[in-house]
Amino acid sequence: MNMCLVAQSEVHNSEVSLTDRRHLHLLKVLQAKQGDTIRAGLINGNMGRATIIEQTPLLSRLYLQCDCPPPPPVDIVLVLALPRPQMLKRSLQSIATLGIKQLHLIHSHRVEKSFWSSSALQPSAIHEQFLLGLEQACDTILPNYHLHKDFKVFVDNALPKLCDGREALLAHPNPTARDLIAANHQPRLLVTGPEGGFIDAEVQLMQAQGLQLISLGQRILKVETAIPVLLAKLWQ
Amino acid sequence: MNMCLVAQSEVHNSEVSLTDRRHLHLLKVLQAKQGDTIRAGLINGNMGRATIIEQTPLLSRLYLQCDCPPPPPVDIVLVLALPRPQMLKRSLQSIATLGIKQLHLIHSHRVEKSFWSSSALQPSAIHEQFLLGLEQACDTILPNYHLHKDFKVFVDNALPKLCDGREALLAHPNPTARDLIAANHQPRLLVTGPEGGFIDAEVQLMQAQGLQLISLGQRILKVETAIPVLLAKLWQ
Repeated sequence: MNMCLVAQSEVHNSEVSLTDRRHLHLLKVLQAKQGDTIRAGLINGNMGRATIIEQTPLLSRLYLQCDCPPPPPVDIVLVLALPRPQMLKRSLQSIATLGIKQLHLIHSHRVEKSFWSSSALQPSAIHEQFLLGLEQACDTILPNYHLHKDFKVFVDNALPKLCDGREALLAHPNPTARDLIAANHQPRLLVTGPEGGFIDAEVQLMQAQGLQLISLGQRILKVETAIPVLLAKLWQ
Repeated sequence: MNMCLVAQSEVHNSEVSLTDRRHLHLLKVLQAKQGDTIRAGLINGNMGRATIIEQTPLLSRLYLQCDCPPPPPVDIVLVLALPRPQMLKRSLQSIATLGIKQLHLIHSHRVEKSFWSSSALQPSAIHEQFLLGLEQACDTILPNYHLHKDFKVFVDNALPKLCDGREALLAHPNPTARDLIAANHQPRLLVTGPEGGFIDAEVQLMQAQGLQLISLGQRILKVETAIPVLLAKLWQ
């Protein structure tokens, strides 16, 4: 936790009382004491500092001064074939840390159906992972996310609108895929596949919607490694 | 497991009998059957295909044809402040997946001393994580690694030799740090710090050895996210 994030609804007269894992983190990990200041931010708001004005074993009370904007977002819409639950958790964190604000989790042939009933997909679980990622990065803006359990419906109905005004890329190992373009701040949509990749029919459907194949090179990366690599190469 | 890795010592007349997790993976995850061919490689050797010539519930016997070289390595010496055990495991995997072949794990002020007695640092545990990373990437060449439990001794004795002939970079958030250089295949040495970063005295010691500070930007990344980002930006 590099920054303590609090919700607007928790704040009264610039003060917030923490009793949960944030309090425990201040107490045990940071060993922060009354009078210390730490980095703090308002969820979906500004960030800055907080001074610990009271601390007991059960509670930390902070005075907030948040007047700096959060870091600029990454203007990439990420479309991700739903990873297995453990990988999903880490991926959600790293997506938030890297500054992606628009995430679409989709089904595909090689996504196991059981993944969709994982508790890691509960809104509260996704929210928690996003918060952890933002706290790591020192950002305040929660990503938006959408779940699409039908691949065909997603490609036919949602994908064309998402691609509008964006360079649309599909990371897929393929002899015809071009190398990654130089990093710049062009709005993009980026689709990454499941373990084992998209099947040919899926790739063709997305190509028919105008997506261009890009390659990450010879090595096959796990989704949790591929996301930072892709982001680093597409955006800087 | 995108490729089945076997040791030279397991192979006799181009055949290998598997009874361990690789056999179980073929049987249960890939559901491969007699006559099927899969990707295979010899540890620190060539890679290619293997045909399953016998399969029982207890054993898979493979016929190997490995005549392709592994993918080119990444010529970056990575110096990493020892991460906490769970993060170490994932970092070792991703280091192997990304193609780094030279790793130095070092102590630093903000590395907890207890991390050095973790079972994740046992040679067999490190070997296992490297194998998982290579199997993911489809590579065969194990990284070399060295442990340095004394920061000062490392910086004074080992670091100058490691820097020889390389551009030496220290990823460290600092107002004077320059942005990352364009990716190319120049030999480099790259140092990344612990959670919370190197302390000033450590940074100064490394700068005195000629290391240049580079910045990853405003966001603070976990080591497991920072490594792929740095690699993607420095090497392509």
